[in-house]
Amino acid sequence: MPAFDEAAGAVEPVDGSAAAAARERHAKLTKPPGSLGRLEDAGARLSAVARTCPPPVPEPAAVAVFAGDHGVLAQGVSPWPKEVTAQMVANFLAGGAAVNVLARHVGASVTVVDVGVASELEPGPGLLIRKVRRGTADLSKGPAMSEGETKSALDAGTEVAADLVDAGARCLLTGDMGIGNTTPSAALIAALTGRPAALVTGRGTGIDDDRLETKRAVVAAAADRAAGLPPLAVLASVGGLEIAALAGYIVGGAASGVPVVLDGVIACAAALCAVALVPDAAGYVFAGHRSSEPGASVALAELGLDPLVDLDLRLGEGTGACLALPSLQAAAKILREMATFESAGVSSSGA
Amino acid sequence: MPAFDEAAGAVEPVDGSAAAAARERHAKLTKPPGSLGRLEDAGARLSAVARTCPPPVPEPAAVAVFAGDHGVLAQGVSPWPKEVTAQMVANFLAGGAAVNVLARHVGASVTVVDVGVASELEPGPGLLIRKVRRGTADLSKGPAMSEGETKSALDAGTEVAADLVDAGARCLLTGDMGIGNTTPSAALIAALTGRPAALVTGRGTGIDDDRLETKRAVVAAAADRAAGLPPLAVLASVGGLEIAALAGYIVGGAASGVPVVLDGVIACAAALCAVALVPDAAGYVFAGHRSSEPGASVALAELGLDPLVDLDLRLGEGTGACLALPSLQAAAKILREMATFESAGVSSSGA
Repeated sequence: MPAFDEAAGAVEPVDGSAAAAARERHAKLTKPPGSLGRLEDAGARLSAVARTCPPPVPEPAAVAVFAGDHGVLAQGVSPWPKEVTAQMVANFLAGGAAVNVLARHVGASVTVVDVGVASELEPGPGLLIRKVRRGTADLSKGPAMSEGETKSALDAGTEVAADLVDAGARCLLTGDMGIGNTTPSAALIAALTGRPAALVTGRGTGIDDDRLETKRAVVAAAADRAAGLPPLAVLASVGGLEIAALAGYIVGGAASGVPVVLDGVIACAAALCAVALVPDAAGYVFAGHRSSEPGASVALAELGLDPLVDLDLRLGEGTGACLALPSLQAAAKILREMATFESAGVSSSGA
Repeated sequence: MPAFDEAAGAVEPVDGSAAAAARERHAKLTKPPGSLGRLEDAGARLSAVARTCPPPVPEPAAVAVFAGDHGVLAQGVSPWPKEVTAQMVANFLAGGAAVNVLARHVGASVTVVDVGVASELEPGPGLLIRKVRRGTADLSKGPAMSEGETKSALDAGTEVAADLVDAGARCLLTGDMGIGNTTPSAALIAALTGRPAALVTGRGTGIDDDRLETKRAVVAAAADRAAGLPPLAVLASVGGLEIAALAGYIVGGAASGVPVVLDGVIACAAALCAVALVPDAAGYVFAGHRSSEPGASVALAELGLDPLVDLDLRLGEGTGACLALPSLQAAAKILREMATFESAGVSSSGA
């Protein structure tokens, strides 16, 4: 059976009783009830994922950076040349990109996966070649890829997740690289949420008003074409190879029973696809940060997720997921290590 | 010369040219300009504090938790009994409180300083006895403390900062413990910003509507009495011993040239006092998190600070400062470790 289909069948709903046990435990810890805010929510959700309270600390963590190119770049949706995708892959492998710095800082490994870079890349340490095709077709002219290619990319992502967990990872972080990939992300978010293109399309890594107008028109036409199709067809029609791989990675993480931390808008689009394909995967997904790209907030609201970090980041690569990791780990340690009122001999509130 | 006065005279304005150098360096790193959002702002400010770019990573870090009691508790502003202050000090020393868990998580030491706990505490490992008096007087009836006592608390905080830096700390985090201390904090914020009591007074660790009405009336009367007095007199009239010590700690950190990361609303009130007394200290202060207590946001706006963490925390102790530390350290590492477009051979945007 293809890896994605097998993982999809293996995803179990998270354990609500473990989340309830975490809420009970939070009330006994030496702090005013609810005073750790959304860290308590994260702790309860980690318990639900692990099916036990207190949950294990989500470590070690691994970032997979899925890379792919986009035919829609021909429409002028980004000022960056396509070559930058491959150049940035080389930068990741040399350890000099932002995601490398932040992953090292939080103790996460980085694996780069070529699922659709336009040029030929040499395999090497830290780089997996799982190329499905050399970049997508121009989604403004027709489907970005076939459903078969979409399934291959889903399988590639699922397999990477399983391999990372087999190698010891207990928390998966999403990463992505693909010049132009905020355009398919916006189209997926519009198509899957029904929100207007103007509301979900942003300036990506930074474009001027003219390019933004072009981008919105491309997104609107693509989303109109895809709206109402089955999820796999939506992903094939207006998605991207690295986005499909990320959707597979999310489902693979869920099938392995580990939390998956989303990065920015590309990951949010992939998570919408993953949850549309496998609804029970939703319980395993944590929002790393709130990207300044407007589609990210729309997708997070649709997924019912509150991000751990909100620093106006709009870089991608996995940077926001890395920055969120220490807070997620802290949420687990609060449940594991804090004293209770009884054990510490502290008086409760008379309230 | 008293420690605080000496430190106040030693605080130098931060170095704007180092911040400008950081902005220039950010533009050359392999990422779209500005795409690391407020992490870039933090990196520029760390450079200004260190007077060099790239700045050193702010580590090791130390949390000082200043503890004191409050006579105003007699007015029913909190449901927690006064004894909890001393009980929580014992919990800190045993390592079971939230701040212990989070400080361990981020590699920071914890030092507890009794500047005004009502009961007698035994000195021991991790606890410094610098008691100025056994709790403040009821600030709703008259001054919380004398100006001499206020100066003693300022000196105690300044000395703790200097000692921690002498012992190797390169980043100071604020912590506090004092049942009832959101009341003097709100009064200080109202008095020093001129904002109405109703706007800056919140539910603290969690109070009902009746107590909130009482608390607002107490804060309004106290702020009216203190408004327009010189900063030291404001602090004496409506402050607290641990708040004065925190103001001294902030100035002490600034005098030592290290960044000081604020925790929640108590730290924000102390920072307003510190900056009113020593305006150049402002450049050394970083907002750790946005407490859900409304006065914190008012104080942060007055100080011109954007917090690194926003997780609806309202616990205090230093917990929000600890959670912010990894992001602050990340800001320095971005400037120190990322490749430039030139060094990595990555094409720039054509924009």
